[in-house]
Formats: sequence, structure tokens, C-alpha cells
Amino acid sequence: MFSLLRSSSLRRFSSSAIRADRAVVYAQNGDPSQVLTVLTYPNLPQPPPNSVNVQFLLSPINPADINVVEGVYPTKPTRADTLIAPGKNGECQFFVGGNEGLARVTALGAGVNSLAVGDWVIMLKQQAGTWATDRNVSATDILKVPNSEDLTEAQAATLTVNPPTAYNMLSDFVALQSGDWVIQNGANSAVGQAVIQIAAAKGLKTINLIRDRPDLEQLVQKLENLGATHVLTYDQLSDKSVREKVKEWTGGKAIRLGLNCVGGKDTTAMARLLGEDGHLVSYGAMAKQPLSLPISLFIFKNLTCHGFWQSRWYSQRSLGERETLMKNLVNLMTEKKLDTPEHEIIVVKMDESDEQATQKVRETLQAISGGRYGKKVLLKIESA
Amino acid sequence: MFSLLRSSSLRRFSSSAIRADRAVVYAQNGDPSQVLTVLTYPNLPQPPPNSVNVQFLLSPINPADINVVEGVYPTKPTRADTLIAPGKNGECQFFVGGNEGLARVTALGAGVNSLAVGDWVIMLKQQAGTWATDRNVSATDILKVPNSEDLTEAQAATLTVNPPTAYNMLSDFVALQSGDWVIQNGANSAVGQAVIQIAAAKGLKTINLIRDRPDLEQLVQKLENLGATHVLTYDQLSDKSVREKVKEWTGGKAIRLGLNCVGGKDTTAMARLLGEDGHLVSYGAMAKQPLSLPISLFIFKNLTCHGFWQSRWYSQRSLGERETLMKNLVNLMTEKKLDTPEHEIIVVKMDESDEQATQKVRETLQAISGGRYGKKVLLKIESA
Repeated sequence: MFSLLRSSSLRRFSSSAIRADRAVVYAQNGDPSQVLTVLTYPNLPQPPPNSVNVQFLLSPINPADINVVEGVYPTKPTRADTLIAPGKNGECQFFVGGNEGLARVTALGAGVNSLAVGDWVIMLKQQAGTWATDRNVSATDILKVPNSEDLTEAQAATLTVNPPTAYNMLSDFVALQSGDWVIQNGANSAVGQAVIQIAAAKGLKTINLIRDRPDLEQLVQKLENLGATHVLTYDQLSDKSVREKVKEWTGGKAIRLGLNCVGGKDTTAMARLLGEDGHLVSYGAMAKQPLSLPISLFIFKNLTCHGFWQSRWYSQRSLGERETLMKNLVNLMTEKKLDTPEHEIIVVKMDESDEQATQKVRETLQAISGGRYGKKVLLKIESA
Repeated sequence: MFSLLRSSSLRRFSSSAIRADRAVVYAQNGDPSQVLTVLTYPNLPQPPPNSVNVQFLLSPINPADINVVEGVYPTKPTRADTLIAPGKNGECQFFVGGNEGLARVTALGAGVNSLAVGDWVIMLKQQAGTWATDRNVSATDILKVPNSEDLTEAQAATLTVNPPTAYNMLSDFVALQSGDWVIQNGANSAVGQAVIQIAAAKGLKTINLIRDRPDLEQLVQKLENLGATHVLTYDQLSDKSVREKVKEWTGGKAIRLGLNCVGGKDTTAMARLLGEDGHLVSYGAMAKQPLSLPISLFIFKNLTCHGFWQSRWYSQRSLGERETLMKNLVNLMTEKKLDTPEHEIIVVKMDESDEQATQKVRETLQAISGGRYGKKVLLKIESA
């Protein structure tokens, strides 16, 4: 197994330097717990014209980030050799992990007028390499987060993937009116919780499916506190009486939108609860099983099945649409309608060696892969 | 098992009457080979105002008609007691089979100016009960077929279900341009053959999937003669090399439309050949298996899955749109771009008794249910 630490092409810099910039990098795709390395690199020079230096404050480790490192995700990272530890004749080429994150502007290059030192920014480019302390980025590759004392770092750091996924799925497929119903599975996921809250803010009613568990009552209570209208387990969903129960809840009103991040037979059962002209939108496949649906649902109930991928949304929309989306989400957050997601912050401390930090990051990624985290994991790499 | 022949509520009329009107009827849902009965009824009186009497020339027996008789189809037939053999106080109520058919106007009621005796007409209402000789229908429930010597009876009789399904699926989901590709399974079905021809008339290229069979070469030749660009068996589809082969054919151009009347794993394999932003439209489920698709196709390739049901199309469109559709199809037919479907005509002769005719109809329906007909079956009930 290749390890960056053993790569002769890797230039390493002493962590005893006065100020340490660090990043989580990899030279080739593979199991994150084996290919990721924390690397110290020289402090950034002053930013070239039309660029800024930023320092990351908090960077999520999303499940998709793991797939990117593994090389099984459709989006490929860009090599970072010119920004960190430049090699001779391109001999040292590697990737910086991380797609999402909140950064603070630390220095402005000539010609940058739209930003100020201290501004909070998020990345416009996919796979920007956010698992780092400091990076130099083009001023056109970042978006300023509105100043607000009510916005937490964790909210701003998670602004580009989960809440927009929830927001757009609730808007882009069915013209829902206040009082309309939405059904979703994986309702306890980060997107699921955002769906509950954004739907509630829009006056929509939600039926939320979750796995049975020992502390079920507690979770149901938590989701109801977020605004969930009803919560069902997959076991309850498979019971024949569920159709009558749902009919009673909705007063027979057709459920037109279903959101799926699971797949397999539980999703088939959910799709059957959709009414005439329903739309089933898939954005995840946690059960690692296909979407399997009776063809009669398509022909006679006019079911339509879509996929949603926030990355595609970004690639097809204008900067203006993107700013509007962010502002809508920030407004929901500052109006306390969209809560900070449950999260745990993994801190890579200044006094940890690269070897120790590497060990910590690898263990964290392994735990996330194994599904041992029930909450969002945010990485904070300390720097001066 | 209930049989109409044994029903005390059924009034039967002598088949020795000077002129015999007859229909294939059933009093309750069930296996067509057990519940269908050929019934002789009195000649129709002169048509009431705003209605016409029509005589059916040819009436298809479509697979969906069998499901209607069985009671497992979403569209329900209407009872016909007031038109044929009226019972006392509604005690005799039954259905006339058949949804599609070509009829000839035989008599006009007062106030009907848009039609003339001798006009060819097709039914606007679903489940109009076309397995009959003569019926009285409202003038607003029929549509005049354009006069054309080039239009065969079999073409006009099959104008409302299969060709429009093919035509609309090629228009309603993807804005295809000449030179674009379409892939379909069940390519030898009546709809499949219409798809091949209509696509060819539009300059579209088709990849057509069929079952392997002893006379494969002959069928491939036949479909190519109709205009099929390429024909593949499901065995060839499941071979790993198929992707390269298809890429060679299309020059790497994305296939944006797939048409499915099968389901199961062969449809999964077909869906994988669709390109970015592809649409898979299901209009049948001959394999009686669900549509099962990897969720990644939805998320990362932006696949959308729809259903198509010509009955819904009719219920949602204006009479004008319907006339335009029919004219477009008749034009394709008279321009020899859409051939008369392969068919077999089952004739119920004048000199056959109702019992003999019932036997013949039941045997025919049983053969169709068992898949013993490779072609369209058209019913012709002789009358004076």
C-alpha cells in the first residue's frame, strides 16, 4: 500500500517552523485510513494579484469526501502541487482532501476589492481542498458569507452541501403549497433534518422515515422538535395498516414529493405511498441497494423518478442564483428556522506532530466510513 | 365460476332473427375464457337526437382489454344495459368488451351535421365496448377518420392505442433532433414496430432489443426493413462488450431516450446505456418484474424515469390535440412510413350460433393470454 510518508517525491518541512501550515493530502486514491497524510508546508507568500489567502476555520468531512479519496466518486479532485510544497518538474503531485469548509480571508492580492481581511468565505469550486489551514485561492472561486452574529461557524461551514440539497429538492421538482405533504427516508441524516426544518418553515407537512433503534422515542421527539409532522420506522412502513394511517394523516390528499437517500425495499414501500403524479427524488443510496419499483406506479400513477446532486446544481446555475440560495439559507439560519447541525469537531492541534495528526485523521475517517458517527464531523486544523 | 349463459338475469334473443346484432359481453370480472359470452340482441332503433348508430368493422383485442375483463386494469368498463338487451329495473347489467375499433356510421340522429352515413369513425371514450356489431353512440364520443383510399381497415382500427403511444413517447419527453438515438426493448411488439417506423420517419436512429429465438435472423431483417438502425438480443445486451459496440454505433453521442415495456434486469442493462440526462419511459411490463435501477444513475447521470399511458394522454388533452395526433398518424400511414401492423382477423360468422361464437372468442382470448399470438388480433363480428 502506497503511503505518502514513504514517498521519495514528497518534500517534508519541519513542524518546528515558527508558523505551521498544514493540510490533509494524498498522492493517489485508496482507503482514506491508509492514503491520507497530514503534511506541514511553508507559510504562504503574499497572494498574487486577484487572489486571496484564506485560513480554514472548520471543514466538514462528508461521506462523499471519502468516496473522492477512494476514487469512486464522479468528481475528481485537482492536484495541488503549485500551492503547497511545489515539486521539481511536477515530480511531487498530490491532492488536498475536502470539498466544503468555512474560511477567513487573511490577505488580499492586488485588484481584489470585493473582499476584506476577516471576511468569512466559502468555496465556489468543487473539491477545493478544504482540509487545510491556509490556501491561496482566486477571488472568483470564493463566495462571501453574509456577516451575521447569529450564524455559527458550524452553520457557515456546512452551507454548501446539505442545506442546499434539502432546499432545492423541496423547490425544484414539485410546486408545493403550504399544507402539502412530503415524505422522506433517512430523516435523521443531515439532509433529512434540514428537509424537516425547511419544509416546516414553508408550511409543508412531513412524514419522516427512520430506522428502529433502542432510543427511538428520543429520536422521534428530537425530529418532532425540529418540525417533523409524523415519524415512522421502516418496520411500521412495511405494515399493511400504514396506508390507512397515512391516509388519515393527510386526509386523503396526495403526497406529491418523496425524498430518498436509502434505496431497497423500504424505498419501494415509501414510493407506494406517493399519490397520483408523484415525484421521487433520490440523492443518496445508504442501503447500497437499487431503486426497485413496480412499473405500474409509472404507468398508472404517473410516478416520475429523478436524482438530485447539489454539485450538478452548482455547475448549471449562475453565480447570482448561487448567492440567492446562500442568502435564503442564511436567512433561515439567522431566523432560527434552520438549526446548527449536530456535529463533533475533530481538532488537529498545533503541538501534534504530522505523524500524530495523520494517525488522528486516519482514525476519524475510518470511524466515519464504518458509520460510527451519528453526527456531522468537522475538521479544525489549528494554526497560528 | 359465474357464466353469463347460466345467468337467469340474462335475456337471450333468438339468433334466427332476420338480422342479428351481436356483442361479446360479460356480467362480472374474471378469466376472459370463462366470463365472456357472445350475445345476440335486437336490432338498434333509429338513433336518438345527437347520436349515431355505428357498425364495427374491425376491433382489436389488446392485452390491456384482457386485464379490463379480469378487473385488474385501472380503467373500468361502463355498463351497457340501456343499449343492448335492456333489463327490467336494471336487473340485467353487463359490460361489452373492447376499447378500440373502427366503425362505420349507419344512421344519423337529428342534429348530427358533422358526420355522414358511411363515415369511418373511432371512439373517443375509453372502454367504449367495441367487440360488437352495432352500437348507438353520442356524436361527441366519436372522431371521424380522414377519408383515404390508402388507409387500410386494420390501420384505422388500431389508430388509438399503439401508434399514438409510440408517437407521443418519441415527442413528449426529450426534444430529439434528426440524427439522435433512441433505445427500446420489446422492439417486436406493436408499439415497438411503430417506434421503429416513426423514429425512422423523423430521422432518428434506433437500437432495438428483442428476445433471442430460432428465427432471429428473419426478425432482425424484418425490423431493419421497417427502419431499425440496429437490433440486439437481450443476451447480447448483457455482454460486457455491448457498451463499446454501442459507443461505436453512436460515435459516443449520448442516448437520451429509452423506451421500456419489459422490466427486470434487461431493462437495468438498457438503462445503463443511456447517456447523461437520459429519460427512461415505461409503458409496459411484459416480464412482470419491477424496474430496478442503481441510484447512482439518477444522482450522477441525471436519469429521469417516467411512465406513459395513452389513456392519460387522452384524458388530459383537448379534442383539437387529439385530432392533430390522429392526422399526423394517418399521414404517416398514407405516406407509407407507418405500415399496417401484422395482424390476424378472427371472424365470428353470421351462421355461427352464439354458443359457437362464444367458444371461438374464449379460445382466442385464452391464446392471447398465453402469449400464443405474435401479432395483433382483430375481431370481426359479421352482421347483415
